[in-house]
Amino acid sequence: MAQRIVTLLTDFGLADPYVGVMKGVILTRAPHATIVDLTHEIPPQQVFLGALALRSAVRFFPAGTVHVAVVDPGVGSDRKAIAIATKEYVFLGPDNGLLTLAAPREQRQQVRQITNEALFCHPVSSTFHGRDIFAPVAGHLLAGGALADVGPEAPDVVELELPWPIRSGATLVGQVLYVDRFGNLVTNFTPASLAHLARDRVWFRIRGTWIQGLVSTYAQLPRGALGALVGSWDLVEIAQRDGNAAQCLQASVGDEVVATEQAADGSRS
Amino acid sequence: MAQRIVTLLTDFGLADPYVGVMKGVILTRAPHATIVDLTHEIPPQQVFLGALALRSAVRFFPAGTVHVAVVDPGVGSDRKAIAIATKEYVFLGPDNGLLTLAAPREQRQQVRQITNEALFCHPVSSTFHGRDIFAPVAGHLLAGGALADVGPEAPDVVELELPWPIRSGATLVGQVLYVDRFGNLVTNFTPASLAHLARDRVWFRIRGTWIQGLVSTYAQLPRGALGALVGSWDLVEIAQRDGNAAQCLQASVGDEVVATEQAADGSRS
Amino acid sequence: MAQRIVTLLTDFGLADPYVGVMKGVILTRAPHATIVDLTHEIPPQQVFLGALALRSAVRFFPAGTVHVAVVDPGVGSDRKAIAIATKEYVFLGPDNGLLTLAAPREQRQQVRQITNEALFCHPVSSTFHGRDIFAPVAGHLLAGGALADVGPEAPDVVELELPWPIRSGATLVGQVLYVDRFGNLVTNFTPASLAHLARDRVWFRIRGTWIQGLVSTYAQLPRGALGALVGSWDLVEIAQRDGNAAQCLQASVGDEVVATEQAADGSRS
Repeated sequence: MAQRIVTLLTDFGLADPYVGVMKGVILTRAPHATIVDLTHEIPPQQVFLGALALRSAVRFFPAGTVHVAVVDPGVGSDRKAIAIATKEYVFLGPDNGLLTLAAPREQRQQVRQITNEALFCHPVSSTFHGRDIFAPVAGHLLAGGALADVGPEAPDVVELELPWPIRSGATLVGQVLYVDRFGNLVTNFTPASLAHLARDRVWFRIRGTWIQGLVSTYAQLPRGALGALVGSWDLVEIAQRDGNAAQCLQASVGDEVVATEQAADGSRS
Repeated sequence: MAQRIVTLLTDFGLADPYVGVMKGVILTRAPHATIVDLTHEIPPQQVFLGALALRSAVRFFPAGTVHVAVVDPGVGSDRKAIAIATKEYVFLGPDNGLLTLAAPREQRQQVRQITNEALFCHPVSSTFHGRDIFAPVAGHLLAGGALADVGPEAPDVVELELPWPIRSGATLVGQVLYVDRFGNLVTNFTPASLAHLARDRVWFRIRGTWIQGLVSTYAQLPRGALGALVGSWDLVEIAQRDGNAAQCLQASVGDEVVATEQAADGSRS
Repeated sequence: MAQRIVTLLTDFGLADPYVGVMKGVILTRAPHATIVDLTHEIPPQQVFLGALALRSAVRFFPAGTVHVAVVDPGVGSDRKAIAIATKEYVFLGPDNGLLTLAAPREQRQQVRQITNEALFCHPVSSTFHGRDIFAPVAGHLLAGGALADVGPEAPDVVELELPWPIRSGATLVGQVLYVDRFGNLVTNFTPASLAHLARDRVWFRIRGTWIQGLVSTYAQLPRGALGALVGSWDLVEIAQRDGNAAQCLQASVGDEVVATEQAADGSRS
């Protein structure tokens, strides 16, 4: 059987029937598709948060999955619609950077502009390309259609980058990228970005509070304690055991997080 | 393969397990069904809003889809349970008008009262016909059962109508029917209702603000500007480019919207 | 075909992509699985509410369904991961009581500790066993894998119990367990717990208000009246016809509910 799994990530919410309509369009073209919602609660038009969520989720899907993402403040303008193929996946979405954290340059095998109107739902609205362009193109692929059908190669796309921490000596200055339902503060520290710091001597400072070390599990923390660990987003998270770190620290997206190493004499560099 | 796609639209929300339970009942009878959520966030017992959402969504599904809708303040009373078949779809739901905007009179091929208790989940509760009547009847149909099995023909059903704009000369007085997640104000102006007005000379007034013309795409508007266009609901929407028209205008459901035509001398009729 | 339906119940919410990621892991191992969401809106870490919702929902699914539940404040600690098989279902989740209302002792055929790391997603995080342990084990079962593969028998698990009403003579003192979207107050009175009371002479008192009798349907109540009936959770609910009992009574979870019988002379025992 051809590719049959498709994921959807949008900022459409679940109150309006927009997501359901996209599924109808996909199933019209690919009746045997399995459709998985990644999330539809990206805050309206927050492309970066959508890109971050997509990046965190896609690697858990089987090869051949089609990932459709629509956070699209430029819908109806001259922004392009694009398809990016990696070794494992095809990504469909607007050319505003949304796809580029999940499908970084070094993994891309094809990038195409979606221009083939024969694949679209007509009349093509200017307001809902999720329904009129991305869903039917996903259906085309899931039904076994060729990626080359969607349009010409177009390798130059809008790129987003994770805002990497700024390094000053052994100290890194990063930030909170995301706060999840549990109040975990997802930072922009990747495991690699901290490789020069000793895991047990690293300290994090956020909102004036110092947090020692990078633990492996919440269970290493006393109840109610704050800690740092590499979490579900493959990024360092500040978490509170049996609590809500965001509430505890009154922290939110954009707050500064500093990582540094304690000197042998106990002072922090 | 027989019909296998079923959509669900309810006011049950997603916090309680009621929707999941309906799916269990459907899958018990039709293990290969593909179940699609249209929305479960219709405000409790708002039949008209449910009917409006259903109307906007169903045409994007393949022929043979079964649409189940349950917004049912009369559950347990003597309101009937009905099935309406059009050329393309079967609709199941309470006889309170919920189905009638999506399956208007001229498209109906069969209307039946659902009375065949052999199809129901027993004991039939008085509070949850979604689970005990509509889900198992949907499962029956999806498993290849005949529509005629559900009960006798019953063509007289409760009808809802879209509240059409009131026409006075060239001026139409309509209203806001729905506000979506993006703050778009969905009105009761259909494209047809405005056919007598010149597209480029029509003006809309809402909350004291005049909006000129009917644009084809958001992209024709300057950033932040208000505009009117035929949107995802196949109705005229008042939208703000890169903004939220509902917030900008402090508008909400029920607000009056006037459409009129600018006279050659610049005055509005 | 082997078992193919799996339900998910978590406290993860739908804003973060965590639920979608679990689905990706399941589909990687069992591409033909049908995944049904029971709810993901259990309040964070409220194991009892999760157990209650699971109990109410599972019996509506076909035999062979795998039920995965993750409300897991102890993730990463030494709490066990377990699998419970009843005659009809397999339940997977943390050993914190979450599964035990839905799979009570007398129905259990096997209880196993999940220890077989060969089935897990690696590296196994300390924060997201839904993704790294429960989802892949579900995929294993859905793909036809044996339950015995997951680990050794471990019959001693943490048990939850419904807090049964306290009986004093003919009077029962119970409580509100749950408030649903419609404001229905789900109590801990089972139909059996009231068997010693005459159905038409029972009175309920909540928040100082007396409610007479146990009705069969909302339709037996006048519009706006409060009533008691056995509802969708197979428990007595206090409901308001065409209204919201929780708002009407300003009642919430934990409030006392008394059931008693009216004496022949009209006094209440």
